[in-house]
Amino acid sequence: MKKYINTDPWKIVEDDFMPENYRSSESLFSIGNGMMGQRASFEETYSGEALQGSYIAGIYYPDKTRVGWWKNGYPEYFGKIINSPDWIGFQIIVDNEILDLHNWSVNSFQRILDMRKGLLSRQFVATSPSGKSVRVHVSRFLSMYEPEIGTIRYEISPVNFTGNVQCKLFMEGDVKNEDSNYDEKFWDILHTEANKNYAYLLAETKKTRFRVAYSMNYHVFINDISWQGNAQPHHTETGVSHSFSLELSENDTLRMEKYVSVLSSFNHTINDLKENTIALAQKAEQLGFDYLLKQHQQVWSNIWEHSDIEIEGDLEAQQAIRFNIFQLNQTYTGSDARLNIGPKGFTGEKYGGLTYWDTEAYCLPFFLRTATQDVSRNLLIYRYKHLQKAIENAQKLGFTNGAALFPMVTINGEECHNEWEITFEEIHRNGAIAYAIYNYITYTDDHRFLIEYGLETLIAIARFWSQRVTLSPARNQYMILGVTGPNEYENNVNNNWYTNKLACWCLNYTVGCIDYVKKQAPDQYQELVKRIQFDEYTETSNWLKIVDNFYIPYDSEQGIFLQQDGYMDKEQLPASAIPADSRPINQHWSWDRILRSCFIKQADVLQGIYLFEKEFSDDVIRRNFEFYESRTVHESSLSPCIHSILASRIGDIEKAYELYLRTSRLDLDDYNNEVDEGLHITSMAGTWMSIVEGFGGLRIQDNQLTFHPQIPEKWRKYAFKIRFRGAYIKVTTDVNHVTFENLSETAINFMIFNKTVHLDPYGTKKVNRAVTV
Amino acid sequence: MKKYINTDPWKIVEDDFMPENYRSSESLFSIGNGMMGQRASFEETYSGEALQGSYIAGIYYPDKTRVGWWKNGYPEYFGKIINSPDWIGFQIIVDNEILDLHNWSVNSFQRILDMRKGLLSRQFVATSPSGKSVRVHVSRFLSMYEPEIGTIRYEISPVNFTGNVQCKLFMEGDVKNEDSNYDEKFWDILHTEANKNYAYLLAETKKTRFRVAYSMNYHVFINDISWQGNAQPHHTETGVSHSFSLELSENDTLRMEKYVSVLSSFNHTINDLKENTIALAQKAEQLGFDYLLKQHQQVWSNIWEHSDIEIEGDLEAQQAIRFNIFQLNQTYTGSDARLNIGPKGFTGEKYGGLTYWDTEAYCLPFFLRTATQDVSRNLLIYRYKHLQKAIENAQKLGFTNGAALFPMVTINGEECHNEWEITFEEIHRNGAIAYAIYNYITYTDDHRFLIEYGLETLIAIARFWSQRVTLSPARNQYMILGVTGPNEYENNVNNNWYTNKLACWCLNYTVGCIDYVKKQAPDQYQELVKRIQFDEYTETSNWLKIVDNFYIPYDSEQGIFLQQDGYMDKEQLPASAIPADSRPINQHWSWDRILRSCFIKQADVLQGIYLFEKEFSDDVIRRNFEFYESRTVHESSLSPCIHSILASRIGDIEKAYELYLRTSRLDLDDYNNEVDEGLHITSMAGTWMSIVEGFGGLRIQDNQLTFHPQIPEKWRKYAFKIRFRGAYIKVTTDVNHVTFENLSETAINFMIFNKTVHLDPYGTKKVNRAVTV
Repeated sequence: MKKYINTDPWKIVEDDFMPENYRSSESLFSIGNGMMGQRASFEETYSGEALQGSYIAGIYYPDKTRVGWWKNGYPEYFGKIINSPDWIGFQIIVDNEILDLHNWSVNSFQRILDMRKGLLSRQFVATSPSGKSVRVHVSRFLSMYEPEIGTIRYEISPVNFTGNVQCKLFMEGDVKNEDSNYDEKFWDILHTEANKNYAYLLAETKKTRFRVAYSMNYHVFINDISWQGNAQPHHTETGVSHSFSLELSENDTLRMEKYVSVLSSFNHTINDLKENTIALAQKAEQLGFDYLLKQHQQVWSNIWEHSDIEIEGDLEAQQAIRFNIFQLNQTYTGSDARLNIGPKGFTGEKYGGLTYWDTEAYCLPFFLRTATQDVSRNLLIYRYKHLQKAIENAQKLGFTNGAALFPMVTINGEECHNEWEITFEEIHRNGAIAYAIYNYITYTDDHRFLIEYGLETLIAIARFWSQRVTLSPARNQYMILGVTGPNEYENNVNNNWYTNKLACWCLNYTVGCIDYVKKQAPDQYQELVKRIQFDEYTETSNWLKIVDNFYIPYDSEQGIFLQQDGYMDKEQLPASAIPADSRPINQHWSWDRILRSCFIKQADVLQGIYLFEKEFSDDVIRRNFEFYESRTVHESSLSPCIHSILASRIGDIEKAYELYLRTSRLDLDDYNNEVDEGLHITSMAGTWMSIVEGFGGLRIQDNQLTFHPQIPEKWRKYAFKIRFRGAYIKVTTDVNHVTFENLSETAINFMIFNKTVHLDPYGTKKVNRAVTV
Repeated sequence: MKKYINTDPWKIVEDDFMPENYRSSESLFSIGNGMMGQRASFEETYSGEALQGSYIAGIYYPDKTRVGWWKNGYPEYFGKIINSPDWIGFQIIVDNEILDLHNWSVNSFQRILDMRKGLLSRQFVATSPSGKSVRVHVSRFLSMYEPEIGTIRYEISPVNFTGNVQCKLFMEGDVKNEDSNYDEKFWDILHTEANKNYAYLLAETKKTRFRVAYSMNYHVFINDISWQGNAQPHHTETGVSHSFSLELSENDTLRMEKYVSVLSSFNHTINDLKENTIALAQKAEQLGFDYLLKQHQQVWSNIWEHSDIEIEGDLEAQQAIRFNIFQLNQTYTGSDARLNIGPKGFTGEKYGGLTYWDTEAYCLPFFLRTATQDVSRNLLIYRYKHLQKAIENAQKLGFTNGAALFPMVTINGEECHNEWEITFEEIHRNGAIAYAIYNYITYTDDHRFLIEYGLETLIAIARFWSQRVTLSPARNQYMILGVTGPNEYENNVNNNWYTNKLACWCLNYTVGCIDYVKKQAPDQYQELVKRIQFDEYTETSNWLKIVDNFYIPYDSEQGIFLQQDGYMDKEQLPASAIPADSRPINQHWSWDRILRSCFIKQADVLQGIYLFEKEFSDDVIRRNFEFYESRTVHESSLSPCIHSILASRIGDIEKAYELYLRTSRLDLDDYNNEVDEGLHITSMAGTWMSIVEGFGGLRIQDNQLTFHPQIPEKWRKYAFKIRFRGAYIKVTTDVNHVTFENLSETAINFMIFNKTVHLDPYGTKKVNRAVTV
């Protein structure tokens, strides 16, 4: 845990320059716009320890995999969205001394990420080794309005001298990934060109041959007056720049505005790339920094209008939830079904910017509730597009008859991870994808999706489960052997409760969906049956036989669901018994020790209880929560949010609040000592849910929203907004009341504390909390 | 399976040149002398698919490890005995065409490995693309007498032309390992030098900085007359050569004899290296090929005198057992306690030439019975030298108080493997090392070893087991969770029967050894107690508590020991149900499918029954054998020998014979389609035991040898020799009799069919088999 970010309702603020936090701040102050993203590396030279990172959605490289001993069925490569040419660069030389905060003394420093505006800015006064001080103020943003544009405003003033300032505005293609498996570089630089009208750089990924074009324009002002001098264009084999040199006096201000367009073959034909790229940077320059910023802010303003959560009485909680909402919206805008949400978004190299089950289990519910329906639909279509690859993936492992195993980690539908205990065994993701379909349909009532895409996906998944189960000769029940559950601190276990439960549900749900589609869309059903050679009677009978005789591990001694066979043979200790200096255990203990311990990385049984909550009584939920929460170390970002929701569910608001802080400030307070690697983007959706489903008690029941709002002791009031089938409401809870405002022209019925409420278009209702608590 | 080697009692013979077998033959015809070894790559140019390999005992490189996601406690590097400079090279150019069997047509070809002499030879007639034919005859050996010398005789005659023949005798240091993890090269070439007196090359391994020096001399004859012309010395940055050119007529024979000395800093000071190396090659040239060969053959003749097994009536079996004995003796001579036996010896890159548990479990019994006592003692001393590293290895995993975990794979005592499921979990090797101490003492009665080295090792191992067990809250018994047994087709299982059994035995045996040493050598015991801070009472009480309450999994339904928890939940199928075209399954099935299947890679429960045979009744052995043998695919080389011994034990001679052929001809007939990677050296010791302990029924009981000889139906007679505590006897079994000859001057008592026999020095006894069968 590391706390150095100032608390503020709308801003992430750092008031000191601490080189040891450089990489952490590069993560925390990251910016993005769905199409590209960037760590908050300094624009000017920084020679200290850094992880420069600039990423473009969809642009990946299949890095050669790295495994101990390769075995059949192992993935051949690890795809990753790679660090891309660096377009933010400024080199500033003051009388022959390069401005570099690693070597200069920093007298004053402030960095602010203004989440309301989507603007990153930084100011400081720095003094060179020879004693010359400059004042610098930099702002940058990636336009949410015109997402192929990035813009930087860089201002510099001599403080205590008159002298020469040389400036180079550059873009450089010779970049590397820290996580390159074989220290290879991933880009070929095809073309560099610099002249008085633009500087242009064309890069191509090796192997995948994506092309990305960059064009740069700029505008220079001295004391707000446009500078008309000539800069020197220059290009090398891998980079382009414009340089100039000026004499500045004390208190002169040199302002440089750099406009960069970034276009890729993911969205443009190769033939158009150069022309479009150059034109866009020129257009940006013409529009100017302030105008572009205004467009950009307008988009953010709309986003906040629809998805802000307000919390009164708890600044830390307020800042944190906005940080989560902000980062989610920076990462994914939902407009392109070819894109998805990497666990670290565009904020670091770890997890390669690839798609994990996080999307279905965490992000989808968030976007379902906060964005228009097409956004979550696009997330599901993304998987549907990968269905054939998922079938091939299962075939590689020995499955037949159209069984699909979606990858644990993917960019193009192929499995990318490089540990067998994950790729082969963490098969619960297949269930999460099925559950997401259920979730989407339940929330939106969009049964067309089921008919057109959902059922085909579900059948392929059901086929997988039906082949993946084993009829145990010892027990004469169906089991699932050799899996890794969400709790990755166990590998290759038998009968992981969560996986078994989910698989059993999947088979059953799919049979129900078949009945529905057969009745509602018989022609389309018959077309599907034929296309996928579906033997309905034989296959569904077999599935139901499995459902009826599925082994679901249970410990009758403790009255709890059993995480997996043999879990109770482990030494049983509470996580509180782990000394503080051994936390997080994954940074202090050997993997051997972790595997054999009873400690849980993340929600596993509780994840299942969260999904199938309606099946369980309060007592069952409470018993399992108490047992498993006490053993959970929450070293996955995906863990505390689910636990927080369940803690709210059983009325343990104090615990729910503690877990809420942990999930929402996971990165801001660096709970797991790893924020330097990037932010936990996908779990941020879980944070949102720990307010809305947790404290707010939002559920869907009988095609209706239901609420059971509670409020943490520290809070005076909190308010969230949700979309539901055309309606759009705001829910404000304070200690005594819950107020519902319908912000749409669609009337809506919902339940609060088990009573139905009707809300007219633009109507308001206030419900007393006190009577029910 | 691939059969192309001719059957012969003393020779390995290949009669055709088949490029597709080139790599397999490179393995099968490998030669070595304990200090170095070499694959049977051609001396002259070969541009086809090959795995050139030349290895020097003890000379290794710590190759950077390759894992998916590194976790705490993972080994940092994978050490490997690396491919060394190529010293065998000849380049032959016939009228501007390079002799290269990959491009020339081969009209006649024969390769012979004469095991009696230890000589590899090859002859062929080959015709160049332009139609010129040459006859070639090459012989080479690595001297067993002077193990730093390698010698090649290369003869070439024009068959159908008169013309120019250019010859280059060279050594080249720019070599690589196919298994280099990051395509790095492992050698720096420090010096090359060629003049009329010698050609000299000095190479140094990167990182480990071992130096190896090579010097070459040669002698050329034309039609048996010494050639006095001048060759051209030449050196490059990485190689040295001598070249000359001659006009040869039809039926002229050019004979070249190449003498190379190979000396390393493992055995010489760096200062002496150059002088000694050059002197040795010159000495070799002076002694000449025939003389060196005679010395070499004399050593082989002694080895065969003591360790040959004769089989009458079954040429395949005869050839196979000699091949096994030959290769074992080529790999390890037992004279240096810093050396050990890699699973592939010097015949390939796989397993890196490193030390595995194979040594203790398989090789030690072989050397105990066929070599002088110091050889097996050296193998045990090797581990003792690594004890401190083993304690450090355990510390890295979180163990304390001097607990030792010997590495699964090592060269210098540090763990080298790169899969957690092996390094952390295949902890049974710790038991094999303890058992080897027991085995050695039982066989030799050398209790001094126990006092001086054994007990310290045993206590460190016992400390490990006592910390590695878990007291299961569910069962209130001690368990071992999260292991991989010898059957590596299961990973991370709980309560592997073999591991539990071995651990339990270890704890108990160590307590017994403590009692012995305390009584017999009280001073040394007290010194040890102090040095290792041994709290005898507390520690041994704890160990005995564990022993008394150890969970040993058993399936009462089947009346068998249970390989591990949950094994009976798997689909139970016999290995015979696997289609032939899916064998070996590790080349056809995904790792996922293998892990979840019931199929067993190698002896696991049966390995334990083999070790602790005396504890079990015939019925128990038979039931377990039948159950597990039917599920075993024998895709480890270590498997069939143990099964063969147990099949003999239960009187199933037909099965024992089938398994004997499989173990003994594993490489010759390439059962597992992998001989191109190298030979299975360590399992060859198991092959020897499947005759001596299997058919011969040799056991040690009450300080005596006991025999129960049986004979496979096909065999008329077989004879083996064994050493036992100063005595040295030959045991010949035919259908009706067993004949014992004492070849030593030490009288010996032993048991045959449960009756005691006394054998005078040099005496003979003939026992009737018929009455007992």
